[in-house]
Amino acid sequence: MDKKIDLRSDTVTLPNEEMREAIRAAALGDDILGEDPTVKELEQLAASLLGMEDALLTISGTMANQIAVMAMTQRGQEVILGRDSHLYNLEVAGLAALSQVQARPVPVHQGVYDIESIEAAIQPHGVQTARTGLICLENTYNLNEGAVFTLEHMREIRELADRYQVPIYLDGARLFNAATALGVHPSLICREVDAVQICLTKGLGCPLGSLLLGSREFIAEARNIRQRLGGGMRQAGIIAAPGLIGLTKMIDRIGEDHRNATRLHAGLSGIAGIRMAFEKAATNIVSFEVVKAGWDADRLIAKLQRRGIWVKKIGARKMRMVTHCQISFEDVEHTLSSMQQIL
Amino acid sequence: MDKKIDLRSDTVTLPNEEMREAIRAAALGDDILGEDPTVKELEQLAASLLGMEDALLTISGTMANQIAVMAMTQRGQEVILGRDSHLYNLEVAGLAALSQVQARPVPVHQGVYDIESIEAAIQPHGVQTARTGLICLENTYNLNEGAVFTLEHMREIRELADRYQVPIYLDGARLFNAATALGVHPSLICREVDAVQICLTKGLGCPLGSLLLGSREFIAEARNIRQRLGGGMRQAGIIAAPGLIGLTKMIDRIGEDHRNATRLHAGLSGIAGIRMAFEKAATNIVSFEVVKAGWDADRLIAKLQRRGIWVKKIGARKMRMVTHCQISFEDVEHTLSSMQQIL
Amino acid sequence: MDKKIDLRSDTVTLPNEEMREAIRAAALGDDILGEDPTVKELEQLAASLLGMEDALLTISGTMANQIAVMAMTQRGQEVILGRDSHLYNLEVAGLAALSQVQARPVPVHQGVYDIESIEAAIQPHGVQTARTGLICLENTYNLNEGAVFTLEHMREIRELADRYQVPIYLDGARLFNAATALGVHPSLICREVDAVQICLTKGLGCPLGSLLLGSREFIAEARNIRQRLGGGMRQAGIIAAPGLIGLTKMIDRIGEDHRNATRLHAGLSGIAGIRMAFEKAATNIVSFEVVKAGWDADRLIAKLQRRGIWVKKIGARKMRMVTHCQISFEDVEHTLSSMQQIL
Amino acid sequence: MDKKIDLRSDTVTLPNEEMREAIRAAALGDDILGEDPTVKELEQLAASLLGMEDALLTISGTMANQIAVMAMTQRGQEVILGRDSHLYNLEVAGLAALSQVQARPVPVHQGVYDIESIEAAIQPHGVQTARTGLICLENTYNLNEGAVFTLEHMREIRELADRYQVPIYLDGARLFNAATALGVHPSLICREVDAVQICLTKGLGCPLGSLLLGSREFIAEARNIRQRLGGGMRQAGIIAAPGLIGLTKMIDRIGEDHRNATRLHAGLSGIAGIRMAFEKAATNIVSFEVVKAGWDADRLIAKLQRRGIWVKKIGARKMRMVTHCQISFEDVEHTLSSMQQIL
Repeated sequence: MDKKIDLRSDTVTLPNEEMREAIRAAALGDDILGEDPTVKELEQLAASLLGMEDALLTISGTMANQIAVMAMTQRGQEVILGRDSHLYNLEVAGLAALSQVQARPVPVHQGVYDIESIEAAIQPHGVQTARTGLICLENTYNLNEGAVFTLEHMREIRELADRYQVPIYLDGARLFNAATALGVHPSLICREVDAVQICLTKGLGCPLGSLLLGSREFIAEARNIRQRLGGGMRQAGIIAAPGLIGLTKMIDRIGEDHRNATRLHAGLSGIAGIRMAFEKAATNIVSFEVVKAGWDADRLIAKLQRRGIWVKKIGARKMRMVTHCQISFEDVEHTLSSMQQIL
Repeated sequence: MDKKIDLRSDTVTLPNEEMREAIRAAALGDDILGEDPTVKELEQLAASLLGMEDALLTISGTMANQIAVMAMTQRGQEVILGRDSHLYNLEVAGLAALSQVQARPVPVHQGVYDIESIEAAIQPHGVQTARTGLICLENTYNLNEGAVFTLEHMREIRELADRYQVPIYLDGARLFNAATALGVHPSLICREVDAVQICLTKGLGCPLGSLLLGSREFIAEARNIRQRLGGGMRQAGIIAAPGLIGLTKMIDRIGEDHRNATRLHAGLSGIAGIRMAFEKAATNIVSFEVVKAGWDADRLIAKLQRRGIWVKKIGARKMRMVTHCQISFEDVEHTLSSMQQIL
Repeated sequence: MDKKIDLRSDTVTLPNEEMREAIRAAALGDDILGEDPTVKELEQLAASLLGMEDALLTISGTMANQIAVMAMTQRGQEVILGRDSHLYNLEVAGLAALSQVQARPVPVHQGVYDIESIEAAIQPHGVQTARTGLICLENTYNLNEGAVFTLEHMREIRELADRYQVPIYLDGARLFNAATALGVHPSLICREVDAVQICLTKGLGCPLGSLLLGSREFIAEARNIRQRLGGGMRQAGIIAAPGLIGLTKMIDRIGEDHRNATRLHAGLSGIAGIRMAFEKAATNIVSFEVVKAGWDADRLIAKLQRRGIWVKKIGARKMRMVTHCQISFEDVEHTLSSMQQIL
Repeated sequence: MDKKIDLRSDTVTLPNEEMREAIRAAALGDDILGEDPTVKELEQLAASLLGMEDALLTISGTMANQIAVMAMTQRGQEVILGRDSHLYNLEVAGLAALSQVQARPVPVHQGVYDIESIEAAIQPHGVQTARTGLICLENTYNLNEGAVFTLEHMREIRELADRYQVPIYLDGARLFNAATALGVHPSLICREVDAVQICLTKGLGCPLGSLLLGSREFIAEARNIRQRLGGGMRQAGIIAAPGLIGLTKMIDRIGEDHRNATRLHAGLSGIAGIRMAFEKAATNIVSFEVVKAGWDADRLIAKLQRRGIWVKKIGARKMRMVTHCQISFEDVEHTLSSMQQIL
């Protein structure tokens, strides 16, 4: 096997030739001084696309998330979020370490936030309790699951949050996957929240970068906080240039990733010894267990790797496959036939 | 009704005449300079009683808790604790605000910590995960429940913690209630943890103060942190003097509080329209719901208050009664007969 | 020498018999529930005396200071304060540790804040700079100096602060010394700031406690923060009871401390081998160096201690004497004659 | 004027064609997974060049600085640094906001740290004082000054720091300017500190990025902290690729920048109405005041800008010129002749 079929994550994509050439030719300037024309163009395009007032380029989704929490809360408040969310589990306790806010995790089942849990998690006023300062959502939810939650559900949460005057932040690292799955324009999802983050990597295939979006005032504050975190950048146009291609040319092809995931899901369901984690692939993520006697994730992964197929272990018997712009229909077919031969 | 029967909490007790006189006559000095003899005597007595190397007087249990977490963790770590624990719910997000640690709550059912949840909550090493720095226990657990967990269970948690090299802190605000219920010397409970806090208020009936206990090195560090929190005190002997009485004369009478709680529980169980939250009173706390049609907690509380009986609302229909050194057997009888008459 | 003449600090005073008796007899309640009548009386008396809307009892001046900073700033702001201030030097880096604010120290010369330094320390708006969130004053200033700054000077700072819309906090641990020295009512000093702290120990001779004062909204916020720091108290009336005596009976006698300090200063000036740090005793603090060949602070302190006189070392040759309610005119005379004999 | 002569800062340089082409052709991978070959190559090259065990790529010098402080201190400690240092003044109070450490600024005069001030700034052990956890140096020092401090002076500080067991961190954003000015290999400077940061922008002319260097254990910890700050990157090879050119081809030409600055300094000295801030240009930075009647910085800057020459205002009459790889000898001559004509 010469070609590597890397299904571990949609973060492993390499920029295509057009992106590489765009970087080479990019108009650049010192972005900390506000003088990089490519960055400005990207920020304006993103704001306009998502219907938000302003945008800020960050080097990662984690940075956008951490900036948002710092800008939207005060130290010593509480933040409500999904128990399996990226913000709670994969950001090195940044919520507490950087923003001094206490996480109050609530259950989320395949994209459905438990509204009663959210309401119960909002702290009553009292001398011994902290104020609830923020609700953080994630759509698609959970990087082993890729669950989508609907506009109706977002509005339901919005209504609850408004009642308690708590702002909402959306970690939309895979927002375009959500919009594609829902068949709605991504700006409709953003309309239900106060601020949102989208990643240029993942579905859009760029090498680096995320965009944080919100009101003009929020973005001005975010720019100051980004600098504190060391996220201010000099000639950041080399990150923004492929981002422009991502936002203009890559969103429409995300449907293909979902179709490939659906094909993967269907194929895996038919293999004896494999048990699917969910009934169907909601977006571009497929999780499953190997249940055949004598097998576990390590063994199966090793066998696949020898055939050039990389998947990610997420439990003793559990694995994950993620489709993206460098996984073709043929790669899916090859993966399925390899799995069948191996088991 | 002249006499007020205050069952809301064991924190409402007033110091008895002996304690008041002890304060008046106390030998005093500047404790920040280490010169208050009464404070020193109390700290030594507590350390010796609980089998710990050293002790530090604090103005409250919350302060002892917050100092312990700050001394036992580094910023950006995670802390495992019970979902309904005082540290997580009633300390104004101090864990995040003061120590920059992320709480990872686990379920506890009537004093039984879910060992599997604790193990699952310990974070794996990885570039995106924070290190688990501390496990916080609480015994008795949950101030609406007063649940006790056993020495065996503590040892089981200790063994797990040792395996992962995570230290254990015990919020023992009601440690003497736990020891009384278990029929063991309190030092046996302390043996299973690295540091512990006990309250001089509550069961011991003092007006103010808690003691934090641990190794000599830990207490030296705690003394520095106490000063940072503004908890260093000048002539603190006026707090320590009743504490000496509490530690020498009040522990033995906690059994009476438990018997009174058991009597209350039995009596309430027999009243139609009342549903008990637990099968029995584990220590000095009795929780129940009013389920009679047309009644809720507010109405029942108002009726009782008119008869001089104060109970605490903990839900729309839920209430709590707590026995303590100022609740006599007669008060219990009077409360029960009043309840019966009212309902 | 039987009697100990303790000139190290005004924090070492012991409560007098009236205070002890007041504690014994105090009406008490659970102050976290807002039910301690003595605490309430003290807080109202203090607010009324100092012309502020509301007050909060804290266990120490350090706690009042830290609460004030946390309530008046947001994380990541800057705080301007005197280079030798208590807040910057003797609170275990609480500003950064608890409030995440950066200290920007400015020079203060014998109570005169350098106005140009303050203005230069206010940060310009910019993407790389933090906002200046608070100016902290201290009057009397510097516990080795006891310098007073005037109402005119306070107004000058107020005017500057208003121009930049920065609030002012006053650490008034020795506010009554300042008012006494200036010959003005203490409320006139408080009028120039947004919030202030006064100590019940020090000049007022109480065993414990400070009061934080400001607007009603500020004190409500402060109460929540006090709880987070573990400074919420149960039957805190035992601290408030002597405080009531302090505020009603001890302020007027502070003039005596100043006269004693002036006498000490004059006497020491006349002793060969002693060099005074300042031209006169501004309030109740006298600092000096031993400059006689073969002598240093350690040697002089040891000699004095053998005669029952305790002074504080503040440098290799530098010492400090502080007068307070337990230092009489005779003690001063005895100290001076001992010094003369020793040197 | 077609060409823009941008003397505001050495951060405004644009990557040359070789760098752009290197980005286009870079071998890439997911660096959070440790799989970007170009990043690895750059980190190894930097470590080897500077004689440190290991290195970590960061998106900016500010991020490298903040990570270093967080890895080298514990919350509530103090950090000693130069009063005009970047870390204290231009990082949005990150020291306090992210690491909860208190800054203790000391004076530095043209690259000479005041050793006595450093020693006096180290906190004595005591219950009211915070521990001194770190000394931060900066070489070249002060971005309006570009002062160099010598190896002998670094060793003197090292010796002091060792005596008190305090580690040293060096903000070496312009380390290669320092090494060039001192005529020593940069690794000799690094030998005197525990950890160091260098910038790929500035003298090296890269678009983005810095490298943090230290022991293997330190870099492992730094990698975890970088992730918390959101500084972990996916296909970061596009930043590393020009970095490789910077480290291999750009260091040697920094001498030219210094010669140009010296020429600028000499020329400006000869213009009536200009007063130089320092006797000579220590490295690549030239600061001066316009003292001619009727002129100030704004007016002079506007006049220069009309001729395509950009300089930075750093005071009402004060300005700064910085030479870098895009400023030629002809640009310097043109600037000087323009200045002469204007004034």
